[in-house]
Amino acid sequence: MRTVEWDPTNNQVRMIDQRLLPGKFEVVTFTDYHQVADAIRVMVVRGAPAIGAAAAFGLALAAQRSSAQDVTALRADLRDAAETLQEARPTAVNLSWALKRVLRVAMESSGSVDDLKQAVLSESQRIADEDVAINKRMARHGAALIDDGDTVIHHCNTGALATVDWGTALGVIRMAHELGKGVHVLVDETRPRLQGARLTAWELDQYGISYELISDNAAGYFLSTGQVRKVFVGADRVAANGDVANKIGTYMLALAARDNGVPFYPVVPTSTVDLELAQGSLIPIEERESGEVLGLQVDGQPIAPQGARARNPAFDLTPNRLVTAIVTENGLVHPPFTTNLPKAVLENPL
Amino acid sequence: MRTVEWDPTNNQVRMIDQRLLPGKFEVVTFTDYHQVADAIRVMVVRGAPAIGAAAAFGLALAAQRSSAQDVTALRADLRDAAETLQEARPTAVNLSWALKRVLRVAMESSGSVDDLKQAVLSESQRIADEDVAINKRMARHGAALIDDGDTVIHHCNTGALATVDWGTALGVIRMAHELGKGVHVLVDETRPRLQGARLTAWELDQYGISYELISDNAAGYFLSTGQVRKVFVGADRVAANGDVANKIGTYMLALAARDNGVPFYPVVPTSTVDLELAQGSLIPIEERESGEVLGLQVDGQPIAPQGARARNPAFDLTPNRLVTAIVTENGLVHPPFTTNLPKAVLENPL
Repeated sequence: MRTVEWDPTNNQVRMIDQRLLPGKFEVVTFTDYHQVADAIRVMVVRGAPAIGAAAAFGLALAAQRSSAQDVTALRADLRDAAETLQEARPTAVNLSWALKRVLRVAMESSGSVDDLKQAVLSESQRIADEDVAINKRMARHGAALIDDGDTVIHHCNTGALATVDWGTALGVIRMAHELGKGVHVLVDETRPRLQGARLTAWELDQYGISYELISDNAAGYFLSTGQVRKVFVGADRVAANGDVANKIGTYMLALAARDNGVPFYPVVPTSTVDLELAQGSLIPIEERESGEVLGLQVDGQPIAPQGARARNPAFDLTPNRLVTAIVTENGLVHPPFTTNLPKAVLENPL
Repeated sequence: MRTVEWDPTNNQVRMIDQRLLPGKFEVVTFTDYHQVADAIRVMVVRGAPAIGAAAAFGLALAAQRSSAQDVTALRADLRDAAETLQEARPTAVNLSWALKRVLRVAMESSGSVDDLKQAVLSESQRIADEDVAINKRMARHGAALIDDGDTVIHHCNTGALATVDWGTALGVIRMAHELGKGVHVLVDETRPRLQGARLTAWELDQYGISYELISDNAAGYFLSTGQVRKVFVGADRVAANGDVANKIGTYMLALAARDNGVPFYPVVPTSTVDLELAQGSLIPIEERESGEVLGLQVDGQPIAPQGARARNPAFDLTPNRLVTAIVTENGLVHPPFTTNLPKAVLENPL
């Protein structure tokens, strides 16, 4: 199944509960958009493209369950729902991108209440379907960067689970593997939520791709000892100048790649590019609860003293000067990003 | 009590078992040098200065328990013991420094077998006592770098537990605190063994110093958002040119400090400087078992899929170009290190 999908029989949203992997594969269903917003907030579903699709399906749910008797009332319900969904997480732009796209259809469609409900559902479905198609196009562009025998570093989870299906950065690695290139992945475990250890390792196992887990802080060692050829990451929001907001730790990884002359490639659908933001410093960085840092155990014992406090920024900003090129569904975008990125986003295909 | 000490009543070595902190404070005793070597290997005791003292006491134990009837046989026993202790861990130079120092006394002392045994024990004791005195001298030099109100980042554990007592980098922070300067510490949790979360947080609690834990990969976020004034780390070995081998993650932290113009200070007793090595690339980097990376749990569940493999380099190398200055017991050493570091080591005081 897909990471997030619409169940047409019961008119509900289905998601893989990513909090339980790799121990348990469980599918949860939602019948109310508030539940979808909660699922995004607590990270049942995560990954910028996946939460975009999830939010779109949340709107579809709001439409289907709305008791509005006329189109105006239905549109008001959808705007309320969009506001709730928008607040679930602040950093990934795909969330607001998907909401805006569905809302626009709702505002522009003519016809009955039922026609509008159908249009909203169709647009959500289209966002999900397009995500898979776009990821495969990105993957083909990115796979050309990988040479047979390469060892690459990958941060967080950017695979099928971070998207509707297939993946972004991990999709590139997967495509290279399917094209018969030998590729070995050093998987950043990705503290604090450990999406690398829990999700990326699990996906690589499924695909039969060779990998080893590393602590995030060990990436510099492998880069500086010449063991790594490329670094691939996803992104939650890319500013118009190519600054990249992505999972915490991406910036330090990009620094280590640059210090050793190793190319650093964010793999990013154009829906993740926010042309309205001139630079990355304008991107809101979510800080999550300290329990995500403190909640680890070793041999059943907590890792920190009782009463310890923690800070937990979920994302950081990688300045464009550290980015070798951005892989999009429209091809590779090279610096200067301020010129080339808008072109790639607006001109389709590149 | 000290992290590692000699028990004169029972002629045995005592250590705080650091693997059990912060949950449990337990003291273990050793009556055989093989046990001491094992304790160093499995990290009952860790931290470059502490394992130096532990190895010295291991030799004292070997001397006390030796059944040698003459000085030549005793010296041979000590050389065997030194070889076993030397193999316990490869990266920290303090271990071989302490062993060499005690062995030299054993080789140069005249007198009876009992005189020699006493000389070995006295030299071990002197190494331990000097460590505390040296740390306090370093701490005073380093504390001058801290301004009232500073937030600093600290990696791994370099406190009383990493030394015989008082600490190196954490000793600097402790001294600043005792001198009445307000200092707030962002504590790298320090994967994979989490010495920051388990030991440094515990020590800071004891000293009443304000701190917050962070994931190692979040240091770049705090540095790039202007929230950090200085970075203090310890070291396991410093080459003659100022290249620093220290706990995995130090290199990426140094890169992030440099990228944001934040000073990066290793705090290093001269016993950690290895003038025989021209540059850091000659320092052996220990790779430890993958279980240290894979053995975490969240909510009682393992963090990685069954059968996952991991790489686990315990240290990395920070090139001298990223080092602002090295704090030693003889004062601050500034670049060029190739000129200034040998002076600081050989000319005492600076």
